[in-house]
Amino acid sequence: MYGRYTQELVLLSLNPVCVFFQMYGRYTQELGAYAKEEAARLREEGVRRPSVTERSRSLELLENDKGCCAKCRICTVRCQKFLISCVGEDWIFLILLGLFMALLSWLVDFGIGICLQSQKWMYVNLESNVFLQYLAWVTYPVVLITFSAGFTQLLAPQAVGSGIPEIKTILRGVVLKECLTFKTFVAKVIGLTSALGSGMPLGKESPFVHIASLGAALLCKFMSLFGGIYENESRNIELLSVACAVGVSCVFAAPIGGLLFSIEAMSTFFTVRNYWRGFFAATVTAFMYRVLAVWNRDEVTITALLPTNFRQDFPFDLQELPAFAVLGIASGLGGALFVCLNRQIVQLIRNQKTIKKFLMKKRLLYPALVTLLVSTLTFPPGFGQFMAAKLTQMESLETLLDNQTWSKQGIPEEFDSNSLSQAWKHPQVNVFVTLTLFVVMKFWMSALAMTMPVPCGAFMPVFVIGAAFGRLVGESMAAWFPDGVHSDGTIYPIEPGVYAAVGAAALSGAVTHTVSTAVVVFELTGQISHILPVMIAVILANAVAQSLQPSLYDSLIMIKKLPYLPELGWGHHEKYNICVEDIMIRDVMYITLNCCYRDLHDVLLTGHLKTLALLESSESMILLGSIERAQIQALLSLQLGRPRRLKYLRDRATAEKRLSVGSHPGSEDGSTMVNQEVHFQVNKVKVQIHLYKMWCLPSVLKPGSMKEEWEENQLDEQVNFDNCMIDPAPIQLVESTSLHKTHTIFSLLGLDHAYVTSIGRLIGVVSLKELQKAIEGSVAVKGVNVRPPLASFRDSGTSGTIMNNENKARDLHKLWNRRKLMSLPQEHRASDSDEKSK
Amino acid sequence: MYGRYTQELVLLSLNPVCVFFQMYGRYTQELGAYAKEEAARLREEGVRRPSVTERSRSLELLENDKGCCAKCRICTVRCQKFLISCVGEDWIFLILLGLFMALLSWLVDFGIGICLQSQKWMYVNLESNVFLQYLAWVTYPVVLITFSAGFTQLLAPQAVGSGIPEIKTILRGVVLKECLTFKTFVAKVIGLTSALGSGMPLGKESPFVHIASLGAALLCKFMSLFGGIYENESRNIELLSVACAVGVSCVFAAPIGGLLFSIEAMSTFFTVRNYWRGFFAATVTAFMYRVLAVWNRDEVTITALLPTNFRQDFPFDLQELPAFAVLGIASGLGGALFVCLNRQIVQLIRNQKTIKKFLMKKRLLYPALVTLLVSTLTFPPGFGQFMAAKLTQMESLETLLDNQTWSKQGIPEEFDSNSLSQAWKHPQVNVFVTLTLFVVMKFWMSALAMTMPVPCGAFMPVFVIGAAFGRLVGESMAAWFPDGVHSDGTIYPIEPGVYAAVGAAALSGAVTHTVSTAVVVFELTGQISHILPVMIAVILANAVAQSLQPSLYDSLIMIKKLPYLPELGWGHHEKYNICVEDIMIRDVMYITLNCCYRDLHDVLLTGHLKTLALLESSESMILLGSIERAQIQALLSLQLGRPRRLKYLRDRATAEKRLSVGSHPGSEDGSTMVNQEVHFQVNKVKVQIHLYKMWCLPSVLKPGSMKEEWEENQLDEQVNFDNCMIDPAPIQLVESTSLHKTHTIFSLLGLDHAYVTSIGRLIGVVSLKELQKAIEGSVAVKGVNVRPPLASFRDSGTSGTIMNNENKARDLHKLWNRRKLMSLPQEHRASDSDEKSK
Repeated sequence: MYGRYTQELVLLSLNPVCVFFQMYGRYTQELGAYAKEEAARLREEGVRRPSVTERSRSLELLENDKGCCAKCRICTVRCQKFLISCVGEDWIFLILLGLFMALLSWLVDFGIGICLQSQKWMYVNLESNVFLQYLAWVTYPVVLITFSAGFTQLLAPQAVGSGIPEIKTILRGVVLKECLTFKTFVAKVIGLTSALGSGMPLGKESPFVHIASLGAALLCKFMSLFGGIYENESRNIELLSVACAVGVSCVFAAPIGGLLFSIEAMSTFFTVRNYWRGFFAATVTAFMYRVLAVWNRDEVTITALLPTNFRQDFPFDLQELPAFAVLGIASGLGGALFVCLNRQIVQLIRNQKTIKKFLMKKRLLYPALVTLLVSTLTFPPGFGQFMAAKLTQMESLETLLDNQTWSKQGIPEEFDSNSLSQAWKHPQVNVFVTLTLFVVMKFWMSALAMTMPVPCGAFMPVFVIGAAFGRLVGESMAAWFPDGVHSDGTIYPIEPGVYAAVGAAALSGAVTHTVSTAVVVFELTGQISHILPVMIAVILANAVAQSLQPSLYDSLIMIKKLPYLPELGWGHHEKYNICVEDIMIRDVMYITLNCCYRDLHDVLLTGHLKTLALLESSESMILLGSIERAQIQALLSLQLGRPRRLKYLRDRATAEKRLSVGSHPGSEDGSTMVNQEVHFQVNKVKVQIHLYKMWCLPSVLKPGSMKEEWEENQLDEQVNFDNCMIDPAPIQLVESTSLHKTHTIFSLLGLDHAYVTSIGRLIGVVSLKELQKAIEGSVAVKGVNVRPPLASFRDSGTSGTIMNNENKARDLHKLWNRRKLMSLPQEHRASDSDEKSK
Repeated sequence: MYGRYTQELVLLSLNPVCVFFQMYGRYTQELGAYAKEEAARLREEGVRRPSVTERSRSLELLENDKGCCAKCRICTVRCQKFLISCVGEDWIFLILLGLFMALLSWLVDFGIGICLQSQKWMYVNLESNVFLQYLAWVTYPVVLITFSAGFTQLLAPQAVGSGIPEIKTILRGVVLKECLTFKTFVAKVIGLTSALGSGMPLGKESPFVHIASLGAALLCKFMSLFGGIYENESRNIELLSVACAVGVSCVFAAPIGGLLFSIEAMSTFFTVRNYWRGFFAATVTAFMYRVLAVWNRDEVTITALLPTNFRQDFPFDLQELPAFAVLGIASGLGGALFVCLNRQIVQLIRNQKTIKKFLMKKRLLYPALVTLLVSTLTFPPGFGQFMAAKLTQMESLETLLDNQTWSKQGIPEEFDSNSLSQAWKHPQVNVFVTLTLFVVMKFWMSALAMTMPVPCGAFMPVFVIGAAFGRLVGESMAAWFPDGVHSDGTIYPIEPGVYAAVGAAALSGAVTHTVSTAVVVFELTGQISHILPVMIAVILANAVAQSLQPSLYDSLIMIKKLPYLPELGWGHHEKYNICVEDIMIRDVMYITLNCCYRDLHDVLLTGHLKTLALLESSESMILLGSIERAQIQALLSLQLGRPRRLKYLRDRATAEKRLSVGSHPGSEDGSTMVNQEVHFQVNKVKVQIHLYKMWCLPSVLKPGSMKEEWEENQLDEQVNFDNCMIDPAPIQLVESTSLHKTHTIFSLLGLDHAYVTSIGRLIGVVSLKELQKAIEGSVAVKGVNVRPPLASFRDSGTSGTIMNNENKARDLHKLWNRRKLMSLPQEHRASDSDEKSK
């Protein structure tokens, strides 16, 4: 899988403007597309400009032509002009995005609702025959999931899964172009609707983050028809991070929580000027989403999505805090377990070759089998009766957040007419068993369901499991302290619903490694009075989970092997002590200004890095810039390509003609070589093949050493860098830059590699890979122990500085001596030439 | 004022490790201090390491020595070890900071409460005599404010004012060292308590952000006694931004709002790995702050600071939204007016020379006069009766958020026994007049009070004014629609308290240009059900205010002339079109590797920039690194300083002795020169004086041309850069980097200047000043119009690239030719020397 990305990733800072931010990672296919786009844009601009002047001229004409109708027309034209100028504005984009996503979210909800209702309808209508009932209960989701998997597979396989890992990678600066196409959009929306309509424990949140990003990307494309600003790619990436906030916001109607979640889960560095954009768009979305519910007569007015009714004057007692803390810690453990379980399942399937082979052949079988298993276990008259399987996700969440106590002193209390909460009651077993079963079963079911190749998220199921676990703790507390824990006269009974809210926030926070789930809970329930218990639990859950496992999204990134830089964890003190010189690669591939084409050829055949350093000379080692592989290949192909060959042949033919008139015509080899189009691929093997072709084919056509000689001559010529795109300012680090700082710089600027220089001299290179290794484990530290000259890196920074200073002095001396030598020819000293040669 | 900072700002990336982030701005005094610290640290480490091994040895000894007492001791020693290792952890720091700040905030509240109560007590006890009452009412605040101003002035003048502008500047990377001292801490805390105790319309929030930052800085210093990690300066800056969240959190008990406010108001780029730190510390603070209230028996349990009791099932009707929108827009206008008014007052005082002169002489008179004016106008039996002046800030806020309606159909309703709300009722005038008067009077009073030289903020007064304005709108709505606006049977009356909450969030958001005031309001009131009206109003207020005026903090930064980079505003499309080459300075000061000391001298006398570019040679223009002025001065002083002079004199004396035995002893001039300590200041004038001294004094001591000749010889020597600190990787931009991107890079990395290079060749420099100019106004655009070769910059990026490519090709050719020439001496071609000289 990794190969899929690396092969397609090319370093193409085609344009010095895009050097800093949009670099590192475009597809090869795009190379041609880019040129075409550019040409089209130029053409279009040429067309559009006159049209604007035309319009203003027509305006003038109209103004001259007095009359009532003319005034109207002037007005219209002016309005039109104003509107077109407005369309380029940010807020128009954000409002459009917000409205569109809210509408889409509502429509998806509507679709899911219809699917779920029809399943329920079938189930109720077939109550006479249990077997038929079971068949209907099981077949329905299997069909839906299979359709979802098949549809996604056919239309756009990138739409599979959560989508957050991909967006996270894109926001880091790696362009996974196929993740942001219209096809993916359609596949994701329809796939998600049918997958969630099946009633499987899957979530809507993370796919919607992807859908919102897709929406933003498509809207950007659409808006770029009006104004040039949407062609700025770094700006579009900023808008993507806004879209993430919108995505969360339109699922939970939680604008602030959505914004914070997008900050925490998506970015490493957050551009604060993006903050208002996110806030604005998320608010528009949430507003629209809730207004649609009002217009649809589902609600009387705009309220929270799942309004609760907890006690406000005395939200909780201080003595309840330990219980909340325990809940938080347990949720942290549970979150880590969930991530681990999910990864284990994926790896089990991957590593078992027979299973893998079988599943690769029959791709739709796996989701169908998983769905069959899960829906069999949740069949309400069967095992499902012990885990309230009748309820949909939202319904169970609603009942779990109920502010009634379900059991008092262990005896199940009478439920009121609220039919939903009835589902938790079972004549034989009490509420505690139901809740425990629900938590345990849903836990592995969700982890398993996540692995199906359909568009799906894990946030919502985890949220529900957390709520159930919290409810369990809350009911236990209520059973333990029937009169509450407050000792000052007034009785404040314990509210298990509060524990459910706390548990939901804590478990979802632990799984995603975010603390903003707390805010999502506040906005979802419309109550914030329990802020402190929620936050304490969330923080504890995060602390536990982060120390045990990566977040679910990072885990998925690892599973999918996306090119992403891991975060520096909590208290990695030793990271402050590792320097760039401990992890850098000293043997840098470079080309020099005065190199010949043979050097380029050799470099291409040996190296792997996507860019090559351009040095002034191999003695001075002064870094001038960097060149991409593709550029070097272009240079080589220009030198050895068809036009030059033809020219050479023609010249030779003319010369031969002069010498001996009447040999075979030179046009023949031209016609035979027409089909050998110079088309480069970055893939190394292809390059080799291509180079082979370039060298060998003509020599096959023409017998003998003459061609070879020509090639050898061509290869020995000095390179002309005139038409070569050079990145003139690659990022440079110093040997003693700490790992911590390197990480910051890489994340800030979305780098793929950086050169390590010492006073202009190139001494090494650090790429994302080295950094990843150094951060992830003991690799770097081990490496340091092995390399003796770096053993002193644990000493204080000062001694390092002194050492560096000595190094620097040496470097300077070298340069200085060279300078002196360079200036010597003017003074015609002969004795220096031997000194230089050493 | 500007001078104060620039003179003290020196570019000292003393250590290559700190090149990237902690650069640009340290004090000169620190130079020596740094060396001392470093030495001390090394010494300490030397001491500490053995002690650790000693301890482990003693542990082993103890383990051998079996016995109950020994076991105890082993336990103790182990605990001790564990504790010491723990102290270095982040979370210990964050908990300590949180607890400490919460306690401090509570103590300050307590102090303010006592002050306000005693004023009230005086006022009530003197009710018999209005004149005495007035005297007490007026004298008390005048004394307190005068004390506050005087105390702050004496102890630490940096403690004056809000503190947020300074912290904002520090977070950008400029170290204003004096803002983070213990003295400032004491002055700020005591000054703030007495200033707020006076009952003037001043705020606690922004000073507390400063206090929390001070606390964090001091705690860092304290913690660095235990672990080395707290010496990492970039880390300390990260902790400062956490402290800002803590500061807000401990005033409003609003952890999430505090964190968001700190993100929005303080940073340009937010490091997401800091997020959990802020969240954690802010939660600890808010928790502790509220727990202290519980322990003090003020509250039964932890609730919001100002809990409200708005209707939850039907929070608002959709048809009320236009009213909220109008409220938001009006608040936006009001916010812009407030910022403008505040700046106008400051400028009025500054520009009126007579006033300024007078006030400079009698610094305490201004605050006393302002206080006299304000407290006279708020005297309750006088004009104060029309504006509820009896109430303190928190009391008026509490009454404004009341969920009772104060007037129905214009007739003042009967207030219930709640004595606080009674203050808004007046027998002659109705509530509308009282509220209007309150808003108008408090508006200018707050803007005026802000200008007093005491520690004070504006957030709280603005918040209260906003609440009053919102209440006014709400009461009007309630009078207009006595039965609410809902038309579906059920009557839901309008709640003016909701409008007050919305108004408070909107106005404070408009003044500070933040949208997170919405979250602060939710946390302050403990209710989030009105999320949409609040957010809509806040967003509209921000949109209006941001298009009219800078934020209050940016305005203060401008007034204080702090070195800060302004933000790129909302829709500045044209900024995407300006390139670095349009704003860069082409005439860069540089030194070359082969320069002589005279060049250094000349460069020092002419230039202003804090760093100089180091080039390989003036022909190649290849940028090798940058050197600070101070380093160059050090080089010069080393070359021309006392030791070398002495050596020269001694040598000469020996030589003279040899020539003619028995001249005057060489030790004499040594003793006379002892006092001429080489102590450099960056200030240019001082440098000149110093250089003058260095040159001239010895020549006074020794008559004649011999000295001068020595100096001339010394100056003609080539510079030895061995012991010079060179920043080997200064940030480089490309000509075509857009202003937008440049701004991003400058803000991201906290730069002061960046070199513009083209394939290694230095072609210009951009400093913060140029960038500021380009962003702030039409300067750059004008400049562009004037410069003809850049007129094409508005064309598409491609043509620019082509041009650049040509330039690049030219540059490359130059380098290449040079290379060729350089390699020629090996081949001993004579004909090239003349070619080179051209």
